[in-house]
Parts: sequence; structure tokens; C-alpha cells
Amino acid sequence: MTSTTALSPTPRSTVRRLKARARTDRQDLYEVLDAGLICHLAVVINGTPVVLPTCYGRDGDTLYLHGSSGARSLLTASGGDVSVSVTLVDGLVYARAVMHFSANYRSAVVHGRPREVDGDERLHGLRVIVEHMTPGSWDYAREPNKKEMAATKVIALSLTESSVKVRTGPPADDAEDVDNGGVWAGVLPLQQHWGRAIAAPDLDESVSMPAHIRDRQFTTSGS
Amino acid sequence: MTSTTALSPTPRSTVRRLKARARTDRQDLYEVLDAGLICHLAVVINGTPVVLPTCYGRDGDTLYLHGSSGARSLLTASGGDVSVSVTLVDGLVYARAVMHFSANYRSAVVHGRPREVDGDERLHGLRVIVEHMTPGSWDYAREPNKKEMAATKVIALSLTESSVKVRTGPPADDAEDVDNGGVWAGVLPLQQHWGRAIAAPDLDESVSMPAHIRDRQFTTSGS
Repeated sequence: MTSTTALSPTPRSTVRRLKARARTDRQDLYEVLDAGLICHLAVVINGTPVVLPTCYGRDGDTLYLHGSSGARSLLTASGGDVSVSVTLVDGLVYARAVMHFSANYRSAVVHGRPREVDGDERLHGLRVIVEHMTPGSWDYAREPNKKEMAATKVIALSLTESSVKVRTGPPADDAEDVDNGGVWAGVLPLQQHWGRAIAAPDLDESVSMPAHIRDRQFTTSGS
Repeated sequence: MTSTTALSPTPRSTVRRLKARARTDRQDLYEVLDAGLICHLAVVINGTPVVLPTCYGRDGDTLYLHGSSGARSLLTASGGDVSVSVTLVDGLVYARAVMHFSANYRSAVVHGRPREVDGDERLHGLRVIVEHMTPGSWDYAREPNKKEMAATKVIALSLTESSVKVRTGPPADDAEDVDNGGVWAGVLPLQQHWGRAIAAPDLDESVSMPAHIRDRQFTTSGS
């Protein structure tokens, strides 16, 4: 799950802008993908790019995505290249000069040609996605039936061609602006928290909330 | 800023999956774009899609994006079609059956061919972006100088071809699963909060935090 080999950039996955923010350890990639909740999937349809938010899950060096078996984006994805981005914004950087304003963030981008998943791996891929989004739920809720499986496509994307960028810390102002003084500079952190769970209106009162949901309430997401 | 004309779907911006979640009012589009913090920009480079997170701002029916004047993605964007997605996740939907698990979210997708911005509009576009990310900062911090402007490209994307999807509320389980009972179902809300601002290590103690940063602390983001 967590081999710490280095990321080997290809022309497509080489970080070009602000290279100081690039991370080259595979563990950094895993951490960003595991901390994220949703990804943005980009495909090319009729020659133009289309980007959509979707769910995902990671197992080792494979990213699983799923969708309706009729979805345009997934039909396209299983025949061509895709790009997947997972981004967490950790705060905003207020600098002395507007052009030094920035965000503290963790960002992973994966390039590649996904394969459509068949057989046992299809159920496995769905489990990985559900457990990424809602840990503890696969063994608790009803598993997919044949009709649901027929309506669902699962694709797998290798993490071979990936890049990671991370920015942390205070603003990087010009020395002249720092010397001039008079302008506040620093970081405003941004955090995600799970709130109090809301039972479905048609839930029987005799059903109590299981620990995997109850204990997720009021915790931080994305760290 | 807030005309309430309807969104007119094109083939590219027609919502195809889960049409019940599609919104057709332009005001819904504005609200999602204004509530979001960053977007994901997809372009096509050498025939393959590339998606990257970036900052943006909205003024009326124009979305402004910026970046280094040498950035591959922006160079490409100013000559070809792009797709921009802004997504807010408001909670996770725990259903009785794993295939009915979902997310509550607000999602806007914009398609089009951006134009590179020149002249006075370039400074205006940067102002719109800075004020979107960090309201109150443009008039407070140092404006861009000539060198900074030379290193920066601004592009403008019309909101003409846009779609909006919103999911709210409880899980939509099969009647049979509801009748069977025994499984907790509901929504776990997810919220974003600004934390306590952290002054830059090299900030002179005599500089106090301005109201537009002080008052943003401990408030909710994305609503």
C-alpha cells in the first residue's frame, strides 16, 4: 500500500511551474490522494476538454473511479487518456503585495489511460471507492445486486504518471515590501469538519447510528 | 451582476446524468461560482487532457483566470477550448445500500474558448480574482508593478455555456431496503471554516490585522 519509491516524472507529469513546490516521494502522492474526498476527472470529448467532479478510491498504485455504465465521460475515459486532480486547500496566504497572494494547498495530478475493470476486480474497485468516501460502510450497508452492477462501470487508473505539489508556510514577499512595512501579512487557515449526522426522515427510530458514522462526526476532514 | 436569465444548454453543457439535479437558473450558477474558492481548469495539450487547480474570480458573466505568462496550461487555454469546474461538497449521503451512497454537492461546469485579456481589463481581471479569493485585499496590499504584470497572463471565459448541478437532502433508497430496516441512513454534513490567522514571522509587531482578515476568521467558507 505504501511503498516509498520515488515518482519518476514523464514529460506530461513534470512539474513546470514553481518547481520548488514539487514533491518527488511516492508517499506524498498517497497522502494527498488519501486525504482528498473527491477528484476532478478531465477527458477529451469531440476534441474539447470536459472536466467533472467524481468519487474515487486508491488501492496501492491504482486509482478506481466509477459511474453509470452510460456516462459519456466514463465511456470516453475507458478508451482514451484522462487527467485526474485531487486538491486540498489548507489556507490562504495574505502577502504585502497582491501578486504574492497565494494558497497553501496539497495537489496531486495523475495522467494515464484507464482500463475498464471486469470480474471480481469490479466489486473490489467499488469497495475501495465506498471505503475511501465513507470508511466502514461497505460491510455495514447492502452490497450491490446484479441490476445495480449492470448499471455501473468501474475504471482503474495507474498512478505511474503522477505529480504532487505542496505549498505550506508564510507569504514570500519581496524584501522591499517587507522593509516598507505597514501591511499585515500571514496565513488564514482553512479547515474541513464533519458536522452532526442527520437521520433520514424515513429512518426507523429503533435503528441506532453505527460507530463508523457516529465517530466521524465533529472530526476534521482532509488531514 | 446577477441577472436571472435562464441557462440555455448547448450539446456540450447539457446535463446528461441525473438530470433531476440540474439547475437552469443563471442565479444558481452565480451562487456556486461565488461560493467556491478554487476551480479545476482542463485543457488539451498534445491531444491529451490536463486538469489543474487554479484561482478564479467572477464579474457578471465573465470568469477570470490568471497565471504565469509562461504557463503551458494558460498558453494552451488562450488558443483552444477549456472546461472549468467549481465544486463544493456539502456532505456525504449514507444510504441503506452502498450503490445509493452519494454526496450532497453544488457543482458548476463552464465550457468555452477563453480570450487573453489586454489593457485595462488585465488589471481589472486580477482585481476580480484577488477580491474573490481574499475580499478587501486589493485596496489594502500593494498593487502589481510593471515587472509583475509582464510575468502574468489573464484570460477571460464567458459563462454562456455553463451547467449547474445541485444535490441536497436525504438518501434515495429503494423501497425494499427501507422496508427491510436495520441499516442507519442519513447525511453527514461537511463544512469549511476559516481558522485563526497566523502572522508572517517577519511581520513587524506594530502592524495590526486589518478588519477584512480579522473578521473572516472563524467564519464559514463556501456558503
